[in-house]
Amino acid sequence: MTSNPPLLWRRALAEALGTCLLVAIVVGSGITAQQLSPNDIGLQLLQNSTATVLGLTVLILIFGPVSGAHFNPVVSLVDWVLGRRSDTGLTLREVGTYVAAQTVGGIAGSVLANAMFEVGTSISTKERATPGHLLAEVVATAGLVLLIFSLAATKRGSLAAPAVGAYIGAAYWFTSSTSFANPAVTVGRIFSDTFAGIAPGSAPGFILMQLIGAGVGLGLLLILFPSSARTADEVVVPHAADKPVS
Amino acid sequence: MTSNPPLLWRRALAEALGTCLLVAIVVGSGITAQQLSPNDIGLQLLQNSTATVLGLTVLILIFGPVSGAHFNPVVSLVDWVLGRRSDTGLTLREVGTYVAAQTVGGIAGSVLANAMFEVGTSISTKERATPGHLLAEVVATAGLVLLIFSLAATKRGSLAAPAVGAYIGAAYWFTSSTSFANPAVTVGRIFSDTFAGIAPGSAPGFILMQLIGAGVGLGLLLILFPSSARTADEVVVPHAADKPVS
Amino acid sequence: MTSNPPLLWRRALAEALGTCLLVAIVVGSGITAQQLSPNDIGLQLLQNSTATVLGLTVLILIFGPVSGAHFNPVVSLVDWVLGRRSDTGLTLREVGTYVAAQTVGGIAGSVLANAMFEVGTSISTKERATPGHLLAEVVATAGLVLLIFSLAATKRGSLAAPAVGAYIGAAYWFTSSTSFANPAVTVGRIFSDTFAGIAPGSAPGFILMQLIGAGVGLGLLLILFPSSARTADEVVVPHAADKPVS
Amino acid sequence: MTSNPPLLWRRALAEALGTCLLVAIVVGSGITAQQLSPNDIGLQLLQNSTATVLGLTVLILIFGPVSGAHFNPVVSLVDWVLGRRSDTGLTLREVGTYVAAQTVGGIAGSVLANAMFEVGTSISTKERATPGHLLAEVVATAGLVLLIFSLAATKRGSLAAPAVGAYIGAAYWFTSSTSFANPAVTVGRIFSDTFAGIAPGSAPGFILMQLIGAGVGLGLLLILFPSSARTADEVVVPHAADKPVS
Repeated sequence: MTSNPPLLWRRALAEALGTCLLVAIVVGSGITAQQLSPNDIGLQLLQNSTATVLGLTVLILIFGPVSGAHFNPVVSLVDWVLGRRSDTGLTLREVGTYVAAQTVGGIAGSVLANAMFEVGTSISTKERATPGHLLAEVVATAGLVLLIFSLAATKRGSLAAPAVGAYIGAAYWFTSSTSFANPAVTVGRIFSDTFAGIAPGSAPGFILMQLIGAGVGLGLLLILFPSSARTADEVVVPHAADKPVS
Repeated sequence: MTSNPPLLWRRALAEALGTCLLVAIVVGSGITAQQLSPNDIGLQLLQNSTATVLGLTVLILIFGPVSGAHFNPVVSLVDWVLGRRSDTGLTLREVGTYVAAQTVGGIAGSVLANAMFEVGTSISTKERATPGHLLAEVVATAGLVLLIFSLAATKRGSLAAPAVGAYIGAAYWFTSSTSFANPAVTVGRIFSDTFAGIAPGSAPGFILMQLIGAGVGLGLLLILFPSSARTADEVVVPHAADKPVS
Repeated sequence: MTSNPPLLWRRALAEALGTCLLVAIVVGSGITAQQLSPNDIGLQLLQNSTATVLGLTVLILIFGPVSGAHFNPVVSLVDWVLGRRSDTGLTLREVGTYVAAQTVGGIAGSVLANAMFEVGTSISTKERATPGHLLAEVVATAGLVLLIFSLAATKRGSLAAPAVGAYIGAAYWFTSSTSFANPAVTVGRIFSDTFAGIAPGSAPGFILMQLIGAGVGLGLLLILFPSSARTADEVVVPHAADKPVS
Repeated sequence: MTSNPPLLWRRALAEALGTCLLVAIVVGSGITAQQLSPNDIGLQLLQNSTATVLGLTVLILIFGPVSGAHFNPVVSLVDWVLGRRSDTGLTLREVGTYVAAQTVGGIAGSVLANAMFEVGTSISTKERATPGHLLAEVVATAGLVLLIFSLAATKRGSLAAPAVGAYIGAAYWFTSSTSFANPAVTVGRIFSDTFAGIAPGSAPGFILMQLIGAGVGLGLLLILFPSSARTADEVVVPHAADKPVS
């Protein structure tokens, strides 16, 4: 890794806080939408997705220089796979820390949103695992992985914040599942029985498809950007794209 | 062409994948809109166009460094016309490969969207070829060509991703046809009998108008930016605007 | 003026085309909105303003390098005032040419939109000149002038395209008049009896208030950015902010 | 402070004008929304938040080079805290001037919006201080402070305009209070009995929570970006991020 990244505990804190706020944005804006526009689910989704585009972009700007702003276990995992042979990217131990922080953060995000809206934390009853939705999670996650690491491979990491925000905004709509594409966020969204929730029974299927999607995205990346796997110098992992600050 | 562009098969794959995802975004977000906001067609179009603005921007970011992210036969064609006398731009054989890849990708995009939403692939019955819509396709395509190649002519190719996304977002609304402006996407959208579909009978008229519009856009470009046709050095074709990666 | 700007006829053509397309975007998206969301005027305005934000940004990107992308007589006029003592900016003769081109373009934009939507060109019957709306036009135009020339004064002209688009998008909503802020666009919008039209009787009041607003904006500019009036070197007029191409 | 910032009266004028226009945008777009979409509060909020995202971004672009575009007492206060030991940032006397200007500007913004919409200035009767809303103000303000000063700490102050606009756009939705996050704007919004108003009885609680939130944000900043408090050179206070003009 280049030039002294922040200490691991600080990066883990950034991942936890960032994922917490990401889930708070998704869940909280979903509750607002549901309460204020009760008669049109499509309008609710537009409000929900618009808030997420804006909020996710900002969170990547804030936490990117500290931890790389993954907020997503599959991103950390692919970062490790791509970085292995070149000594860049996360180590497996760091991936474990990141994933734990992201998952705890994701759950905390639901709790925080529930508290702000005084709705009480309870387990979602919203079943989502249909065949179409499972296919959609593969597509959504493949696209996300391809986006993030193609930007890194072409040294355009500074575009990641608005690009990832925009991608998720489109994926809310063009995938039938509204694009979870993130195991930590999927776990977090179990803990709110509101617009953005997901029943625990649907989560394992979603997460499995996200892992498969990450593999598909990684495969496409290596085909389209062969240099992305070649040398340490060419692999710009997201968390090194912006200069670490401490 | 400058400095070893990616191999042609890789660029064709990028064009096919990009056009596939573009059509999946247009068709898929149209289905979501139709299902969730059944009572307001204008709201559906707002959801559809918002998803397209965001998604198209991201697709150009991903695939631009590989193939130039044309996703559109008329763009590839104009690229060839502008590059002929200066040995830049695509060759005619490459244009053929691009157009084939874009068309196959466009059809695959409808199939993918249909599968995610479990609606089944069938031929659209939505007739669209009115005189007003045909005029609108000329205007929409002329504007698109003028935008893309004026950015190239003034060496601002890095703005193409958000600018083309924004243009299509405006053109959804200010043209009466909702701005197809793309023969490959037009063909692709035949294969979904949903919000964004187009009946096969309307497609030839749309495509003819798009070709005429491309000519109008090219004419305006040469009048307003005379240098764009002059020397190889000044013509920055889109696919060379970003550095090729492999 | 710095380094050979494009010939005047070419710049006039750019102003005419740009203003034509700007009015076509405003009027055309207004017609779409009215037809597709007939039951909610606020939703219509959201569709109308969103299309304008995106479209205006793109038009400034396209035509900026040719003519400065004023599309607005008060912008050309203030450009002349600020440039007088330093031999930069437009000459009075050029201002005349610009204003004529903008006005013709504005009218053509309504005709084009009407034709695409097959509604026929007729004079608007929408009276708009209330005291509140007249005050709003002063505020809207003052803000627009302050924005454009403060960017120029601080050498951030490359931000003008998205910033002016965003400004108009906000001004649609926070001013009671929906922010015309542009005499050429005001004249153009007389020629469509649709959502975005304005009755001829309301136009003179609107234009007078826009001129007063331009004066207010210019005054605030000179107070906040005193250097903007001092030397030729510091005055970056918009049309010189981007390098002229021919 | 680096290299001759603008004179204090000029900076105070910029803060007053900017805060005035910010409140005029929030209140004015709220009135438009309420009048045009009377049947859907969620759609009103979408219109209100969209206008604010665009407008706030533009205001920071205009006034940033003059005063730093704080428009917010807690931002000025944190600027002072961070700058104390390094002789950068505002002095306490300057903070006082800024806060006074912001507060006067905020009130003037309501008066201006009321006048444009001819609704008459009166005190809001909208009670907002529930426990959930108070928690939300802590979260909203902490996030805002963390965003602004993390950008400054990593020398990305030029991103502040779109990032702060986007943040507020998300916070409208994910916090239950619609995110005031600003004592001067809170005071200003007392003076309009419309969509965006706040009853005087709710203001003190909101402002107290905003101060607590600023403290939380500052704490997180110092933990995540320890360098932000270390040396004068590394602390880029927002108002110095863009070059002062006079």
